[in-house]
Amino acid sequence: MKTPGQSVFTNLRIVLVETSHPGNIGAAARAMKCMGLRELCLVRPARFPCAEATARASGADDLLMNARITDSLREAVGDSALVVGTSARQRRIPWPLMQPEECAALLCETAATAPVSLVFGREQSGLNNEELELCHRLVTIPTVTEFSSLNLAAAVQVLTYEISRQAGLSNKLVAGRKESTTPLATAEQLELLYSHLEKTMLAVDFLDPANPRRLMRRLRRLFNRAALDHNEMQILRGFLAAIDKIVAGEGRD
Amino acid sequence: MKTPGQSVFTNLRIVLVETSHPGNIGAAARAMKCMGLRELCLVRPARFPCAEATARASGADDLLMNARITDSLREAVGDSALVVGTSARQRRIPWPLMQPEECAALLCETAATAPVSLVFGREQSGLNNEELELCHRLVTIPTVTEFSSLNLAAAVQVLTYEISRQAGLSNKLVAGRKESTTPLATAEQLELLYSHLEKTMLAVDFLDPANPRRLMRRLRRLFNRAALDHNEMQILRGFLAAIDKIVAGEGRD
Repeated sequence: MKTPGQSVFTNLRIVLVETSHPGNIGAAARAMKCMGLRELCLVRPARFPCAEATARASGADDLLMNARITDSLREAVGDSALVVGTSARQRRIPWPLMQPEECAALLCETAATAPVSLVFGREQSGLNNEELELCHRLVTIPTVTEFSSLNLAAAVQVLTYEISRQAGLSNKLVAGRKESTTPLATAEQLELLYSHLEKTMLAVDFLDPANPRRLMRRLRRLFNRAALDHNEMQILRGFLAAIDKIVAGEGRD
Repeated sequence: MKTPGQSVFTNLRIVLVETSHPGNIGAAARAMKCMGLRELCLVRPARFPCAEATARASGADDLLMNARITDSLREAVGDSALVVGTSARQRRIPWPLMQPEECAALLCETAATAPVSLVFGREQSGLNNEELELCHRLVTIPTVTEFSSLNLAAAVQVLTYEISRQAGLSNKLVAGRKESTTPLATAEQLELLYSHLEKTMLAVDFLDPANPRRLMRRLRRLFNRAALDHNEMQILRGFLAAIDKIVAGEGRD
């Protein structure tokens, strides 16, 4: 297989958060390399580097050597125009939940022009709420209800397989499509937008200062789903700034 | 989730030939169970039963306990109406070589009425020629040419994932999940939201009253794309109402 859409593969990062078992890191690297992916980022791995990781990588140890290590997920995905989190179960608040095919297609399409991150949580507990909020979309790998305990590296294998499938399928399509569109807002820019939104909502007494989280979570979900481009992000911030001015003016009376 | 096409799952057997590493047997069982498959057959496993296999099965040890052990592949696949072998590389003799999707579809279709076997060879050397001749079809999982070293359990994971996808597992999951979500905002409700947004934006001097259309068009596009549900629409209108109150307060001075 030729590697189609080279930018897809350089722009698409796999992020593993607080992996406990070094063997899973190695196996994930092996899965990635087979499918043409090379960018691995590890957020606070329990043990790394580690002989067990290298052994399970089985020839993909170059990915381990070049892996980026960060202290937080926020740092790992800061430059990404799209952050997709993997989730094993259904949550009370219905985040937009994608199937692997849809997820892979979206990642490939976006990675044609900007960095994207696909994030895997801890073996036992997945991603925590704070980390989930950094994700613009969620993907789940369907399993039978009675046994949904997919191994971490197995989940990486399924999704990187779907990505390589979609990259082969959609490469032609992506090539012609993106030229005229504005770049997407980055995760970092979106975080600044959400902080601004929260501040302004508090200023106009719309948010309960004692419990702003629930409403903010809903709004993050809405805007994450919309995949804001840079212009749209600036329009929204401009609107917030205009409101801030009115609020400040009132304060001066 | 109900497992649709129950016969597919009872008729579809995974056969592992002369597996060296017990860990791979356990991981394969785990992959199978997640995807709804339960019939495992081991041809001359190097070490089995084995604590390492049980550990990596991680809750799928019932599949290990019920696994059938045979002395030959011929014995393992004797009752099968369709035998598909997995192959990492293309061989000189041009066997009919399927992609995973086609293979999974064919396996499911046949398993609806008769037993079928999907056969995985040794970690290092795959299936030998005699074994390949027992296979009716071959499937290969596409990888990059430079690194085609898929782990055995990872290959089982990819193909059982494709089988579950083809068996309609994912459709059912999606269908069941959507029911509980809040209804989408109606077109009428969205028009009221856009009018309100325009009015408030004018009030805070963010829109140019002479030419409000361009910015409003962008925002309509953004929110239309996001497919707002009823709650989200109400949150946004609540925020606008809170801004209106501040603006009105200022006007009264």
